[in-house]
Amino acid sequence: MADEYKTRTGDVFNREQYDSLLTRKQFLWQSFEPYGAVKGLFDYGPPLENLEAEVISIWRDHFIRHERMMALKCSMLTPYKVLETSGHVAKFADYMCKDPKTGEILRADHLIKDVIETRLRSDREARGEKVETEEDPKLKKKKAKLSKTATKLDDDVRKEYEYLLATLDDCTGDDMGALIKKHDIRNPVTNNEVEPPVPVNLMFSTQIGATGREPAFLRPETAQGQFLSFNKLLEFSDGQLPMASACIGYSFRNELSPSRGLLRVREFLMAEVEHFVDPKSGKKHPKFASVREVKLPLLDRNTQSAGGSTPQIMTIGEAVDTKLVDNETLGYFLVRIMQFMDKIGIDMTKLRFRQHMANEMAHYAADCWDCELFNSYGWIECVGCADRSAFDLTVHEKATGVPLRVRENLEEPYEVEEWQANLNKKKSGPKLRQDQGKVEAALLALTQEMKEKLSITMASEGKVEVPVAELESGKVELDKDILSIVKEKRKVTTREYTPNVIEPSFGVGRILHSLMEHAFWVRKGDEARSVMSFKPTVAPIKVLVVPLQKDTRFAGLLSELEQRLDDAQLSFRVDQSGVSIGRRYARNDELGIPFGITVDYESLEGKGYTLRDRDSTKQVRASLDEILEAIEKTCKGKQTWDDIYAKLPVFEGKVEEEVEKV
Amino acid sequence: MADEYKTRTGDVFNREQYDSLLTRKQFLWQSFEPYGAVKGLFDYGPPLENLEAEVISIWRDHFIRHERMMALKCSMLTPYKVLETSGHVAKFADYMCKDPKTGEILRADHLIKDVIETRLRSDREARGEKVETEEDPKLKKKKAKLSKTATKLDDDVRKEYEYLLATLDDCTGDDMGALIKKHDIRNPVTNNEVEPPVPVNLMFSTQIGATGREPAFLRPETAQGQFLSFNKLLEFSDGQLPMASACIGYSFRNELSPSRGLLRVREFLMAEVEHFVDPKSGKKHPKFASVREVKLPLLDRNTQSAGGSTPQIMTIGEAVDTKLVDNETLGYFLVRIMQFMDKIGIDMTKLRFRQHMANEMAHYAADCWDCELFNSYGWIECVGCADRSAFDLTVHEKATGVPLRVRENLEEPYEVEEWQANLNKKKSGPKLRQDQGKVEAALLALTQEMKEKLSITMASEGKVEVPVAELESGKVELDKDILSIVKEKRKVTTREYTPNVIEPSFGVGRILHSLMEHAFWVRKGDEARSVMSFKPTVAPIKVLVVPLQKDTRFAGLLSELEQRLDDAQLSFRVDQSGVSIGRRYARNDELGIPFGITVDYESLEGKGYTLRDRDSTKQVRASLDEILEAIEKTCKGKQTWDDIYAKLPVFEGKVEEEVEKV
Repeated sequence: MADEYKTRTGDVFNREQYDSLLTRKQFLWQSFEPYGAVKGLFDYGPPLENLEAEVISIWRDHFIRHERMMALKCSMLTPYKVLETSGHVAKFADYMCKDPKTGEILRADHLIKDVIETRLRSDREARGEKVETEEDPKLKKKKAKLSKTATKLDDDVRKEYEYLLATLDDCTGDDMGALIKKHDIRNPVTNNEVEPPVPVNLMFSTQIGATGREPAFLRPETAQGQFLSFNKLLEFSDGQLPMASACIGYSFRNELSPSRGLLRVREFLMAEVEHFVDPKSGKKHPKFASVREVKLPLLDRNTQSAGGSTPQIMTIGEAVDTKLVDNETLGYFLVRIMQFMDKIGIDMTKLRFRQHMANEMAHYAADCWDCELFNSYGWIECVGCADRSAFDLTVHEKATGVPLRVRENLEEPYEVEEWQANLNKKKSGPKLRQDQGKVEAALLALTQEMKEKLSITMASEGKVEVPVAELESGKVELDKDILSIVKEKRKVTTREYTPNVIEPSFGVGRILHSLMEHAFWVRKGDEARSVMSFKPTVAPIKVLVVPLQKDTRFAGLLSELEQRLDDAQLSFRVDQSGVSIGRRYARNDELGIPFGITVDYESLEGKGYTLRDRDSTKQVRASLDEILEAIEKTCKGKQTWDDIYAKLPVFEGKVEEEVEKV
Repeated sequence: MADEYKTRTGDVFNREQYDSLLTRKQFLWQSFEPYGAVKGLFDYGPPLENLEAEVISIWRDHFIRHERMMALKCSMLTPYKVLETSGHVAKFADYMCKDPKTGEILRADHLIKDVIETRLRSDREARGEKVETEEDPKLKKKKAKLSKTATKLDDDVRKEYEYLLATLDDCTGDDMGALIKKHDIRNPVTNNEVEPPVPVNLMFSTQIGATGREPAFLRPETAQGQFLSFNKLLEFSDGQLPMASACIGYSFRNELSPSRGLLRVREFLMAEVEHFVDPKSGKKHPKFASVREVKLPLLDRNTQSAGGSTPQIMTIGEAVDTKLVDNETLGYFLVRIMQFMDKIGIDMTKLRFRQHMANEMAHYAADCWDCELFNSYGWIECVGCADRSAFDLTVHEKATGVPLRVRENLEEPYEVEEWQANLNKKKSGPKLRQDQGKVEAALLALTQEMKEKLSITMASEGKVEVPVAELESGKVELDKDILSIVKEKRKVTTREYTPNVIEPSFGVGRILHSLMEHAFWVRKGDEARSVMSFKPTVAPIKVLVVPLQKDTRFAGLLSELEQRLDDAQLSFRVDQSGVSIGRRYARNDELGIPFGITVDYESLEGKGYTLRDRDSTKQVRASLDEILEAIEKTCKGKQTWDDIYAKLPVFEGKVEEEVEKV
């Protein structure tokens, strides 16, 4: 069971207080509220939208610019065929059970887990053991109607249940059907028996065009668009590997039981990198040496198998040397992911890398590590970092006949016997005219397999149809006078191969959810006051401006201040409401504004302003130029409050905030 | 007819050369190419993706930060009911004609325009008049098969055709059906007669949830999500108007004939502002004085009616004073839109504001001006700036019963007689228990109309059903003992009103399309070389690094240079290929890289580097510190090349580029 989630000050996380802050300050809400909110769809209000923009901007700088990745934007609408090839049409499904009396649809694995966990909890209660409640309180209330008394289980049954939970991820649909029958698992809210599990595809389907002849889906990941752009990417990088593309974009999953805030939603932003490497290179990374000594918390497969959950702290150099992490490229990305998380303000004590168990990975994956962040829902996968091998490029090449490969010159050429498709130029010219070039390119691109097939057709029918995507008709018919397909010896001077792909894939919403929880704490004092301690680099609003009191004499200074902040391109909020200055600070601390500039009577005498540190509530006093410079540098991540304290004199005004400082 | 499109150097735009550049440099391509590209869906490659990111970043700064707008992110998946209320289900359609023999679907208005324009063109040819060809060359070729000879029309017919084109936008589906019959308009490619026009909705439909009980669309605009967040926005702005929200997000239109690059696509990024004002305020804008004297090119409704197409250059102050532009807020936004376009590098001679004709506007719109950019397809609407009045908030309030209004305290209260719905708390308490508060709130929110309706039901049946969105059942039944609905006198101390909305709505793809065309020109010299003159602020890559020759002695300097550029967070590209330095400059000019740093033999002697200006090809020589400072300042928009030339000495090296300078 997960540890209890605590805030950065070591206090137990108070979900009610936290949710209240997010609601009052319009961080997010369920979309289309006036129409009855739709589950799994969220709108982001100003604080969260700006936070996301800052996080994305850092992501772009940290990955795309610094790693010189090729930024890509791919379409969300995706033809059926593409996702059929990728395996999503057949396999991207959850098993669902229907409550036949209410029509309610329940995810089979969640249903089983939920019911069995409730029984185990009830058992622990009956035995007088400590019970952690991690259930949705609303759901709990509903279910409470059905079973109010704690029920002790036989020791054997308890063991069986525990085993069942540990192995649930391995179950097929049939397995789950059997478990539901065997353990009399029912809809916990209605107590009705449920129908056997059936697979339901999680993609949103639609159609492109008026006639509906082009069935399509909203993509479930950005990756496929990147794979299908492979040849463009290769050209852009002058044919050189390793190369990486990066796509920040939305994906969609028709989750049947969306839940837990931003952790399982139907429409979500991803940031995915596809790093293409030559499999023969050993997946070395040119910059690995620069990160060798960085230490990471690694929870490997073997530790998990043995029931452990404590990660080893180890340098990535050692992890790769000992093959705990499969290769340098994967290792390099784990480090870069951690550094990114640190940059945006994730609590480094709430981060770990967990290796996938063999049964968790796709069949083609070579290795996979998740960057998990700890929040009030437990350890949550926020970034997957998988080695997808050559799977995707291979299946798309096979399905389309378009080569998705790298060709490189060999130092030592050799000879092979191969199918060749050659045009008789004298005869083909008059027939193909301006299409000649396109047809030649298409012939060159045919796989050996296809050429052999065509040669058989040619032998029997004297003509063949050659697919030529570049032509409007998509094909051309050629007879044996024009086209010869023969097996010939050929000198091989180039090597062709399908690259392997390492894919770090970021769930932006999950990261934001964790980031907000990590930033949240409660300042004790006269009254408990919530604070969002966002780093200045990501804070949605950078500066709070507060005049000490309502006084028209401040107007001139305020307007100068606003102009200067605007010139410096700093976002700010002015709070001129009549409440006490302490209360104004407190309510803006909830928005996570890192800097507070106070305009007071000394300011009127030209003695500058005070600058308040949201986290410590300490203030310094300085000229406007000094204050702006301090804010700008800190918001760019070039210094911290420590540097400001070292430079500017602390202001010991009357203590306006009777609250605990951190 | 539109003028011929010319590049910034006054040369006729060469589409072939331009398209070739976009393809070779991977600016964009049709999505899913290996599967046979899908029309109307584009992937952006590295240059265009980065260009878009820079443009969006400037938009955020120019609008969201500077204007202190509330940034919002709203869901793309949108329930049916929402778009039914907004009118999109009924009215968001195009009229289509089917070619019954080929099954091809043609947009009725495009078909008519296309055929009639072809006939007029043919007529002009036959009369020996000058003919501008603005047709898609591919389409022209196809049609050429059908009509090869120029045909002169009767003068009357010619006039009728010209009138028809001018009034086509006013036609209903039936009108268009009649025109097609009368003028024997056929599919220009097949010469088949077409079926009468039928309306086809342009939204992509899908379903949310497993059971498909929630029909939904992909939103056709971001606006509706913003309207439905109105109450959150009002709370965030402490109940104060004017206030504005801004949403940058994707919208979708199932265009039936996507065409012309990024101008009509199926999936597109929008940036929309909803600026809410009190209609009683006269739609004044607090910052209007600051823009009063800015001059804009305004093509108003009357000029257009009279057949004119030359905009008047006028200060926005005069335009608003004379009511040419309806109000200050609309006027303020027109100026800000123009300033934004200037910032990102739009050619100001290719920008105008065109007022909508009365028949172009939605029935509820008070006034509407488009910011049009001139490109090779003519004048294209890139930003719509409409006054949507109170339409959207009103219809959503009516459909949901949730008030979407502003309430403000009155200085002089007055009395009215109104329907009141009051709970008998003694009796309601035991029945409603913890739901009491929610029911009270729902009762308070009922409109007068609904209360009157309920009072009639109550009188006849003794009980009513009250909608309470906050309850799970969505309603509660209350009988006359618990609820009284009566007409009562009430002192009015507050004023309630539905704000009006001014909506600047940016089509990002169209802006990018125009921006790329405006940036493109051809440098004459030994050979014509294409250049993309992106402003340094938006350029996809900021710096090109070129060693003079392949020489291992440069390695150390190159690596230092790369480190320094990385530290300065500047994106760069190193071109170490073996071709001449002139050729390397030229091919990177196609990517629009504004700065070129050359490492030469003097650099090895510690004599700094040369910095090349992409547009003039001039160079200065300076130390690395000076060069980096120059680049950083210019990329932030804080100076131009003129400032660099004023400060750093021009480098008169051997002339390596035998090309025309601009």
